[in-house]
Amino acid sequence: MEAKESRPQGFPELKNDTFLRAAWGEETDYTPVWCMRQAGRYLPEFRETRAAQDFFSTCRSPEACCELTLQPLRRFPLDAAIIFSDILVVPQWTLMTYMVEGGGSSTMSQAKRWLYQRPQASHQLLRILTDALVPYLVGQVAAGAQALQLFESHAGHLGPQLFSKFALPYIRDVSKRVKAGLQEAGLAPVPMPAEQSCLQPEICPFPQIIFAKDGHFALEELAQAGYEVVGLDWTVAPEKARERVGKTVTLQGNLDPCALYASEEEIGKLVQQMLNDFGPQRYIANLGHGLYPDMDPEHVGAFVDAVHKHSRLLRQN
Amino acid sequence: MEAKESRPQGFPELKNDTFLRAAWGEETDYTPVWCMRQAGRYLPEFRETRAAQDFFSTCRSPEACCELTLQPLRRFPLDAAIIFSDILVVPQWTLMTYMVEGGGSSTMSQAKRWLYQRPQASHQLLRILTDALVPYLVGQVAAGAQALQLFESHAGHLGPQLFSKFALPYIRDVSKRVKAGLQEAGLAPVPMPAEQSCLQPEICPFPQIIFAKDGHFALEELAQAGYEVVGLDWTVAPEKARERVGKTVTLQGNLDPCALYASEEEIGKLVQQMLNDFGPQRYIANLGHGLYPDMDPEHVGAFVDAVHKHSRLLRQN
Repeated sequence: MEAKESRPQGFPELKNDTFLRAAWGEETDYTPVWCMRQAGRYLPEFRETRAAQDFFSTCRSPEACCELTLQPLRRFPLDAAIIFSDILVVPQWTLMTYMVEGGGSSTMSQAKRWLYQRPQASHQLLRILTDALVPYLVGQVAAGAQALQLFESHAGHLGPQLFSKFALPYIRDVSKRVKAGLQEAGLAPVPMPAEQSCLQPEICPFPQIIFAKDGHFALEELAQAGYEVVGLDWTVAPEKARERVGKTVTLQGNLDPCALYASEEEIGKLVQQMLNDFGPQRYIANLGHGLYPDMDPEHVGAFVDAVHKHSRLLRQN
Repeated sequence: MEAKESRPQGFPELKNDTFLRAAWGEETDYTPVWCMRQAGRYLPEFRETRAAQDFFSTCRSPEACCELTLQPLRRFPLDAAIIFSDILVVPQWTLMTYMVEGGGSSTMSQAKRWLYQRPQASHQLLRILTDALVPYLVGQVAAGAQALQLFESHAGHLGPQLFSKFALPYIRDVSKRVKAGLQEAGLAPVPMPAEQSCLQPEICPFPQIIFAKDGHFALEELAQAGYEVVGLDWTVAPEKARERVGKTVTLQGNLDPCALYASEEEIGKLVQQMLNDFGPQRYIANLGHGLYPDMDPEHVGAFVDAVHKHSRLLRQN
């Protein structure tokens, strides 16, 4: 596989490339699966490790981050490990929300007031955040990350007009500048002529995922924003999403996280339905949002197993 | 107008039927407008009236309810007055959420856990709520209400599958049973043969509005659920909504409430765009959700005036 050559030096060989192959749009033998917030409070061992030191010390300790990253993989045959990190350095627009709102809010009305009353200052802040985010993401790849996911948790608060004015331009910019930054850092080969698809692994060894929660209204634009994978929340029907975005991106998602409260048998049925609806290729299974702390790890395991089992069956039929 | 004959006895003649005409799908000279939560805390006179007695005493006092209902109409030339009432007797599914969740929540995960773990009990509770809601709504019409709006504030938490299982059947049932109840109470004429449109005023003198916030995925189903008007939140683009629901329902909405934080000039521009997108007929202007307490009444007035002004201009061109 081409991409292995772009791996930072000194890293062990990749054991399972199913997730990356699906992200690049290559055929896979089964559907890869991971869970947003899979390294999280629903695991007793996570709570134990986290209790040992304060949050920012945890984030600054490579040993603690590595331990938290690997915990869910010891329990479940997940196809991707998510590097434990600090939410305050990862999100972008989302980040502006928390900066302006000064905390959580159900309507985000104070942050939105700013967008309506101070559009120029909002763009200035978003540009500063983008400038900070790009080298951070390139740095993550240099440190070993093999894929990047950009979250926009508040797309639904924005709606089509604000989203296209204050989110999409920065989402596009991050993708473009991260790709350029990777080349500059010698982590990605120089791109082939433009007519070649960006989805070829020679060009995008480090796929980027965009997940805009409640961004149903902007699916077409997100699929054209330079990302190899578009994540979906659970309010979007898989067939309709595929119809809208076309065949050039991989889709990721989107079981309602609360479905993990159901019985393991019911989880199996819901997963089967989801896999049928998404189809066998160009697809990475996930939840439509992160796991909640009160979820039963056994049910997370049932979800992962059901994806692997049914996706193999689906390919046989 | 036919509908006047169905007005409960002893009521003064209707002064402005523009809202009702738009709801029935008749042509209007301008676009009618009202605001969700127009009788609300953003008005100083509302806060003063409410401070005079506790919440439930207010709800039980016809004089206080009447005063609160009329306050916004004294300030703005709104096309509908919204009867001040208690939220806990109005919403249906939404209501189940608050009963099970035991309070507000950003994910509604406890209520949703119930839907996944106890589907039969959930249906039982929803049936009980429906049984309580139908005579309440018929009673509202008997007491003088000329249109009814059903809120489903949490459609987005449900997603397509749970919504079609746990919300749509009850939304349809409420519409059907309220129509039947109105006939039984002698408030609506006996329906004409089925091939006649339900949108004719002879048949539906008391139009029903369905507003399912974040229910973008179910627009087609909502337009077929027996309601004359479908309300939209601000995440749905007007042209796309009209394309999806066809021409048999009136649409209502959907300016982002936070747009009222913008300057009056900017509000005018946003309203103009919204009116162009919805088109002049089969449309009632509103916000995409309720007004917030920190909003400036002057800006609410600017919104109402802009709708009236631009919708008349739109009809001239």
